[in-house]
Amino acid sequence: MGKYEDREFNGGKDFTETTTECDYVYKGRILHLRNDLIKLPNGKASQREFIEHRGGVAVLAVTDDGFVPLVRQFRYPLGAHVWEIPAGKLEIGENPDDAIRRELVEEAGLKAESITSLGAFYPTVGYSNEIIRLYLAKGLTYVGAKPDEDEFLEIKYFPIDELRKKCLSGEITDSKTIIAIFKYFNL
Amino acid sequence: MGKYEDREFNGGKDFTETTTECDYVYKGRILHLRNDLIKLPNGKASQREFIEHRGGVAVLAVTDDGFVPLVRQFRYPLGAHVWEIPAGKLEIGENPDDAIRRELVEEAGLKAESITSLGAFYPTVGYSNEIIRLYLAKGLTYVGAKPDEDEFLEIKYFPIDELRKKCLSGEITDSKTIIAIFKYFNL
Repeated sequence: MGKYEDREFNGGKDFTETTTECDYVYKGRILHLRNDLIKLPNGKASQREFIEHRGGVAVLAVTDDGFVPLVRQFRYPLGAHVWEIPAGKLEIGENPDDAIRRELVEEAGLKAESITSLGAFYPTVGYSNEIIRLYLAKGLTYVGAKPDEDEFLEIKYFPIDELRKKCLSGEITDSKTIIAIFKYFNL
Repeated sequence: MGKYEDREFNGGKDFTETTTECDYVYKGRILHLRNDLIKLPNGKASQREFIEHRGGVAVLAVTDDGFVPLVRQFRYPLGAHVWEIPAGKLEIGENPDDAIRRELVEEAGLKAESITSLGAFYPTVGYSNEIIRLYLAKGLTYVGAKPDEDEFLEIKYFPIDELRKKCLSGEITDSKTIIAIFKYFNL
């Protein structure tokens, strides 16, 4: 390795920042915004703006013949329609396994025989504490979707191989969808 | 496909939501928070809370002998240290290619002969307009890092195969890092 030596900056491996003052700028329906006063590892004062979020679940549901339902919704922050795997926020006190079964029925009308973990990830470590837990659902039965009347979405089944290509080509742009599909192909 | 038919809910494929009133709740250093009044496709009024963000760039730098530098930082929102590929926010008016070269030097002390796109993705479509553009850097020369004095980070070089395993095992949890590594292995 020679020329690419591992290095540490500013004197150590513990870079913990401590909270001097916790300040809620905004408490909303799906997120809270904090702007905390903090102390850097060198003792200097600084600020950290970030989102508090309850976390979410998302599910790659694969039919026996290798098709996967994606949901298409209008995403207001982007001003665009986006294809995604079924997903949702955790309700307060809800466990992730129940949340995934609820979202699978509500959005895709599917019941699953088996639901297994595909791990978890942090979409935006810089300014949100959101964690998204990913699941793989198999043994699917269609029981009828129960969309919320103010939820506007479209569902389409794609061959899983086609989705892998769409992740690579950039047609699929949503983090949870890309990560779930790549993880599936690396199981 | 039969029982898993494609379906549309609430009458159509254009689910565009229109802005009735744009409301900035907070204008910060790295993000703005909006809580807009909007009109749903069915004409009903609703609200959308989301983050405005300038967008970011991130780079998977691969040495000739197959090592990749990761940066470890304390991420205040998570209260934890996280391993990530070098990344940064776009400066105002900066183009992504310049931003990636700047971050590569600042964080890892590296110059690259070639920088190519690995595509872009949206980390959190539900509540942020952030886009992250991913790049692959090759032909690396070490020129000396220039860390900001208030930036606390550690760099370590990992064999790229080991990183793939760490994405699958859940040791790597950051979205941009996971997506860049999987895309590299599917090039």
